[in-house]
Amino acid sequence: MTDVEIVEVCPRDGLQNEDRTVPTADKIRLVRDLAAAGARRIEAVSFVHPRRVPQMADAEAVLAGLGPVPGARLIGLVLNRRGVERAVATGALDEINYVVPLTDAFGTANQGRTTADALAELPSILGLAADAGLRTTVTLAVAFGCPYEGDVPVDRVREAARAVAGAGPDELALADTIGCAVPADVTARLRAVRAVCGLPLRTHFHQTRLTALGNVHAALLEGVTVHDASAGGIGGCPFAPGAAGNAATEDVAWMLHRSGHRTGIDVDAVTGAGRWICDVLGVAPRSALAQAGPFPATAPPRAPG
Amino acid sequence: MTDVEIVEVCPRDGLQNEDRTVPTADKIRLVRDLAAAGARRIEAVSFVHPRRVPQMADAEAVLAGLGPVPGARLIGLVLNRRGVERAVATGALDEINYVVPLTDAFGTANQGRTTADALAELPSILGLAADAGLRTTVTLAVAFGCPYEGDVPVDRVREAARAVAGAGPDELALADTIGCAVPADVTARLRAVRAVCGLPLRTHFHQTRLTALGNVHAALLEGVTVHDASAGGIGGCPFAPGAAGNAATEDVAWMLHRSGHRTGIDVDAVTGAGRWICDVLGVAPRSALAQAGPFPATAPPRAPG
Repeated sequence: MTDVEIVEVCPRDGLQNEDRTVPTADKIRLVRDLAAAGARRIEAVSFVHPRRVPQMADAEAVLAGLGPVPGARLIGLVLNRRGVERAVATGALDEINYVVPLTDAFGTANQGRTTADALAELPSILGLAADAGLRTTVTLAVAFGCPYEGDVPVDRVREAARAVAGAGPDELALADTIGCAVPADVTARLRAVRAVCGLPLRTHFHQTRLTALGNVHAALLEGVTVHDASAGGIGGCPFAPGAAGNAATEDVAWMLHRSGHRTGIDVDAVTGAGRWICDVLGVAPRSALAQAGPFPATAPPRAPG
Repeated sequence: MTDVEIVEVCPRDGLQNEDRTVPTADKIRLVRDLAAAGARRIEAVSFVHPRRVPQMADAEAVLAGLGPVPGARLIGLVLNRRGVERAVATGALDEINYVVPLTDAFGTANQGRTTADALAELPSILGLAADAGLRTTVTLAVAFGCPYEGDVPVDRVREAARAVAGAGPDELALADTIGCAVPADVTARLRAVRAVCGLPLRTHFHQTRLTALGNVHAALLEGVTVHDASAGGIGGCPFAPGAAGNAATEDVAWMLHRSGHRTGIDVDAVTGAGRWICDVLGVAPRSALAQAGPFPATAPPRAPG
């Protein structure tokens, strides 16, 4: 039995690609419901230009209205120095998550900068966060493949991990931004990263090609025990075509519990939170658990006859 | 690189749970298209009572109209002696697949018999098949969990595997009939079975809780290289509530190819065959590949800006 940490990204990666704008009050309720369902780290907002991701325009208002969330650490995603400054100014966050894109095409589309640009600014980003007492994660975006450039070589992931390790954040995340990773990729990339980087690792998978649960399992076999997921399976990246659906928190938690691990997540409660935000968004829940229910069921059907 | 064999079960498990009756001519076309897409073993029909599974009532007509399918071995699923007699009488099959249910509740609902009944008849079933020169698979149904009884102990799977090994079929399959298996279950059960049974193994997974691809990967890590899948991800078991969706052939094949393995399956062709039969059925394709396309895409989107 292992303690596995699920980082709840529904309020950020979940919402940012949805068409319907969610009222600030509903975003606040979502974060509280997810904390009540057992989430101990919640990526609550991102600090990006409101013209690029309108859904995140009220990041400051969400945090101001939310106040402290007992038992949960709040994370803000940032793409540049301006984002960190905004994150620090809120005084409401515990962590920042800084994105380094692994292809220049994706980096330019997603955040207006290349891999080299993002790595060059990393020390300054980490310095700002350290001064404010914020923990730091660096996420390598499109670490398994790029919607524009296609395959991303393992060597590129390894070299980026080496560079990030030199800058010294608290954690390194590998993101399958477009849902193209297979379990064998996860094994190979985590081993390559481990060989050059002693940082705690975290993964981020999408269900675009239904590999997310297998990828989490493969990562666990490599000793990685921190995984992103989104209640209701909602979300995607507006600059990553076809990146529909994060791994659903309830699906990941159910699989982990069935595998004998602990997550602290109440599967029924997070399924409920996912259903609720999907109602707000006017979309159907994308998690398997919301459709099929957990196994074993609380009240299994009786055999016919 | 490993050669992995995908047993195409779309014409049998795929169709049997769908509402719309598929014309015999379309079933014949489906089998031919799947063979043309690279399937080398195809579970083409089942020999069950037409009142219980009306979709399979024309099994003999399908095989008669089909004739030999060069390069592909045809399999018929059977639940009892009467089924084997019908299978033998067609003179058109290469293999039979005999189902042994691992719970009495499921066995009674699915095929009107208990585990003990099904095991007791096994020698006689294998004898009939051997006399006709047919290869034989025994499938342990609900080997990971039962819709009526819930958890199925690993010990029960091990003891059934031991009994089946004693009777000597050519292959033993473990079926996650209702899609409740997680990768850790696969590892544990395959190891338990291997400890008592030297038969070649095969697995059968559903996507009910999105674990099928992870389960195939876990099975591969245990050296199991024969896996069922269904083009378009269609199918389920009429007596297994909630067993929606087999692992889709195109999804499994894509994952395996990305992992460096060979299947002989043309992913585009089998995706096309899945789309076509879904059109015939009036349902949307359930595979990820039919929706998201493979990665890398043949023509990736251009980066904006």
